[in-house]
Amino acid sequence: MHKGIAASSGIAIGIVHVLQDEPIAVNTSLVHENDVNKELERLEQSLHLSKKQLKELHEKTANESGEENARIFEAHLMILDDDMLLDEIKNKICSERFHAEYALSQVAEVYMKMFSEMEDDYLKERAADIKDISTRVIKNLQGRSVDALANIAQEVVIVAKDLSPSDTAQMDKDKVKAFLTDIGGKTSHTAIMARSMEIPAVLGLGDITVQANKGDPVIVDGNKGIVYLNPDQETEERYRILMKEYGQYLQELKAVKELPAETRDGRRKVELAANIGTPKDCKGALENGAEGVGLFRTEFLYMDRASLPSEEEQFQAYREAAEKMAPYPVIIRTLDVGGDKQLPALEMPDEMNPFLGWRAIRLCLDRTDIFKTQLRAILRASYYGKVRIMYPMISGVKQVRQANQILDSVKTELKGEGIPFDHQVEVGIMIEIPSAALIADLLAKEVDFFSIGTNDLIQYSIAVDRMNERIAHLYDPLHPAVLRLIKNVIDESHKVGIWTGMCGEMAGDEKAVPILLGLGLDEFSMSAASILPVKKVIRSLSYQEAVEIADQAMEMADSESIKAMIQQRLSPNGTCRTESNHD
Amino acid sequence: MHKGIAASSGIAIGIVHVLQDEPIAVNTSLVHENDVNKELERLEQSLHLSKKQLKELHEKTANESGEENARIFEAHLMILDDDMLLDEIKNKICSERFHAEYALSQVAEVYMKMFSEMEDDYLKERAADIKDISTRVIKNLQGRSVDALANIAQEVVIVAKDLSPSDTAQMDKDKVKAFLTDIGGKTSHTAIMARSMEIPAVLGLGDITVQANKGDPVIVDGNKGIVYLNPDQETEERYRILMKEYGQYLQELKAVKELPAETRDGRRKVELAANIGTPKDCKGALENGAEGVGLFRTEFLYMDRASLPSEEEQFQAYREAAEKMAPYPVIIRTLDVGGDKQLPALEMPDEMNPFLGWRAIRLCLDRTDIFKTQLRAILRASYYGKVRIMYPMISGVKQVRQANQILDSVKTELKGEGIPFDHQVEVGIMIEIPSAALIADLLAKEVDFFSIGTNDLIQYSIAVDRMNERIAHLYDPLHPAVLRLIKNVIDESHKVGIWTGMCGEMAGDEKAVPILLGLGLDEFSMSAASILPVKKVIRSLSYQEAVEIADQAMEMADSESIKAMIQQRLSPNGTCRTESNHD
Repeated sequence: MHKGIAASSGIAIGIVHVLQDEPIAVNTSLVHENDVNKELERLEQSLHLSKKQLKELHEKTANESGEENARIFEAHLMILDDDMLLDEIKNKICSERFHAEYALSQVAEVYMKMFSEMEDDYLKERAADIKDISTRVIKNLQGRSVDALANIAQEVVIVAKDLSPSDTAQMDKDKVKAFLTDIGGKTSHTAIMARSMEIPAVLGLGDITVQANKGDPVIVDGNKGIVYLNPDQETEERYRILMKEYGQYLQELKAVKELPAETRDGRRKVELAANIGTPKDCKGALENGAEGVGLFRTEFLYMDRASLPSEEEQFQAYREAAEKMAPYPVIIRTLDVGGDKQLPALEMPDEMNPFLGWRAIRLCLDRTDIFKTQLRAILRASYYGKVRIMYPMISGVKQVRQANQILDSVKTELKGEGIPFDHQVEVGIMIEIPSAALIADLLAKEVDFFSIGTNDLIQYSIAVDRMNERIAHLYDPLHPAVLRLIKNVIDESHKVGIWTGMCGEMAGDEKAVPILLGLGLDEFSMSAASILPVKKVIRSLSYQEAVEIADQAMEMADSESIKAMIQQRLSPNGTCRTESNHD
Repeated sequence: MHKGIAASSGIAIGIVHVLQDEPIAVNTSLVHENDVNKELERLEQSLHLSKKQLKELHEKTANESGEENARIFEAHLMILDDDMLLDEIKNKICSERFHAEYALSQVAEVYMKMFSEMEDDYLKERAADIKDISTRVIKNLQGRSVDALANIAQEVVIVAKDLSPSDTAQMDKDKVKAFLTDIGGKTSHTAIMARSMEIPAVLGLGDITVQANKGDPVIVDGNKGIVYLNPDQETEERYRILMKEYGQYLQELKAVKELPAETRDGRRKVELAANIGTPKDCKGALENGAEGVGLFRTEFLYMDRASLPSEEEQFQAYREAAEKMAPYPVIIRTLDVGGDKQLPALEMPDEMNPFLGWRAIRLCLDRTDIFKTQLRAILRASYYGKVRIMYPMISGVKQVRQANQILDSVKTELKGEGIPFDHQVEVGIMIEIPSAALIADLLAKEVDFFSIGTNDLIQYSIAVDRMNERIAHLYDPLHPAVLRLIKNVIDESHKVGIWTGMCGEMAGDEKAVPILLGLGLDEFSMSAASILPVKKVIRSLSYQEAVEIADQAMEMADSESIKAMIQQRLSPNGTCRTESNHD
């Protein structure tokens, strides 16, 4: 048995297909003076072919897995259009008389080294992109096939050191049953692709490429992050049963898609919404039964570019989402950069503690030019569907008032210009800082709704950066303090007749849902894939049961007791996935 | 008028004495082969003399300003004993035939550049130490006076770009009335020395060395961070009055020293304690009327050294503090490193958000070897006075139980070894993480007392790193959320009959004290200099007034209203310093 990181759920039984990192040999001899132009010509042709391939991959991926997954190829295309990089390569051909392959690999190596040594995780990952793209161009120069995975003959479990965007995009989705890799974690490209393809993936297995041989039978348990190479008969039989049960569970999920998100007795109905990153994600949200977008992150418009997005560009994106989701609501969160999300177009300071720094609404209230442009775009989009506005990182009453004043001035502008917008647009705030949760009563008077951002709320409440491995065990959504804050927010909102949603990961956590339901949470927003499992949990409980579970949880001193209680209350009725498939 | 950073309070009227950064010219010509040994000899003599001076400065400073301020010279002595550094200098003399001065300045420059480019603020500051020490050795080589400030003839206000430890240590304390500098902030060496010398200081004035000329009349308002060069008569008259009032205020402070820390009507008595960094600080604490140590930071034993302190070394330090303060209590906080405090002897990971990282009790529960050694030392010291143990950075019940289990095992060990200790030693926790404040009811069952660490509690509650200039304005001790947390902690502790203290800066903030008193805080621990001002505020209020102020504050939606209310309630009675002297 091999234990790795459970990066995409599901169970697969199949045959190993090892994807080798093909070594690339380049000709390091010098080119004859007269052939320099020929080399430049070869480079141009290969670049042209590579761009064509990337455009096709972009198209294919956008269609199959959505725009977000396809954007990586836009980044690759941008690299191939980088004049500085190309000039360096051409210079090595002309001045040093290198072959095109060698010139390119030399330049790529320098950039890879540079990026891989950067502190910023985002930039560090760019090294892999440079590698992916340079491999492509070199293979094209050498006339080699760039799509090793395009023509897999049988259904296989792909085993690789790591999978590049080019690798995953070229795969014949019907033939690939699972991914296993040596490196990578839950947020790696491979993990994202596996979830998008709805196939199991176990990553970070260390040396699975060494352990596994082509043709080996293999069982992949993406729920638990476990792999059995050459399993014995007993294990295989057990997993055939588990796979069947899991298939049934998925069937049951599909069955609830058209049913309302209400308790078994119909006494309590809630709204299940999706968190989206771009307007293209609306498709998946609707397919998974979302009745709205509870969090539209707008950062995609600002990232990976040197200039700020125009009002028009933003308007088009917001309008697209509003129209696609109509008549359901779309909550657009204003810019939430800073912290771990850097903005190339803004001069952002190096901060000792970026999570406690200049980010989100703090930045927007300092840079009202950026904020106003975004608010104008959102208001304009509000005419084309049901749009709501949400401010992130609010810590006190004054910030809400400041933000609303700016919003009012923008509304006045638009009125003056005769531009239509929804004059009744609802305005809410994220509750993700402890101080905001603690003064929910004061904030409730200022807004139309709350949305609890549990990821940050938990981080700050417990003072733990959950990305920090040494202390990640302290990050605990069911910490009594967290539950008390959540209860306070919901209670105070209801006292003045406004509603509270949740757009942190906790809203999609099946163990937490019964408590949240019992506490009276009105809206649950999560990744699209979690909507049906959550609806299934909600529909399995009576309103009274949910309230009892919440009451019991609020009395408990630690999250271990709470987890045990929920497990005990849900499992006997068979309303939850069995533990062996779960977690 | 020039506005700078109010780094040390008080008012001074005097004459400018500009301290020029003397340029140091070194002989860059080469030494004759035969004279190399002579240069080595000169270097040795100068090093010997420098060390002698440093030892004297250490002695003088320790006597005049306490051990903590003197430790900088130990660091300088350590630099002069650094073999690697010395070998480099000698090598430049022998191999390159440089004069000793030139060799030293070349080597020093490399190190200064290296340190000044480091990311870590602590290491960055080491560049100034290298500069200070190399200047000293070069001056000694050249037979120049190293104590420019030792023989000031008249009472002056020192104006300098910045002041080095050597500068301040040599000063004739009776002649210096104030410091003004171009650079530096509240935590700079100059600021610390000014407060220790009890003279006003305004720092970070930008170009005061250019603006001021030797002999200029000058007014320094260290309370407001304001400087008047060549003031007009009206200003000078106004300040003569203010200075007199301030002097009276200081007299009144002295008057309350022997009086109890209780409300005007005697209905409520609290404990005023001091925060200390080393056992040497007990002297100042007692002189300022402290009735205990509310926070003994033990980090000094661990910092700036390559190995961990032994149990014996720790025991001696803790015992010294316990004996000095007896019969008053000393609360010893277990190791609180991590975050911005790095420990050379421990391999500490680079963290993206150190304030949300592996620090304090989190580190101790992972490194029980370090924790046990410290607990043994504290328990042993408990036999020699009234010692209490306090765990920092507690976020949940489980951590307290784990820490107490380790404490119990250590107690059993000591019993087995027949080593005496206070079997009734009280154990408390710092409440400095929002989750701890929110579950004070659950934690109160596990401990003997709470001490609220407001600096961190505020940072985490509002998600703001107060050292980050862009957002420091959000750091707000009177944020309603913060007051609610404090009230909850006090109330829950009293429900089960334990007490709550406070050892964050808020406990010494005269504006916050009336509220804290009214909320029922039992112990206020602060820097020694704040004790008498706080006692004066407490003695100016009746118990009923304090309760009313607290009640009113708890009803208010923002800190601006709270501040205005307190100002209004305290000022009419003249119980507080007038605004012009205050803030």
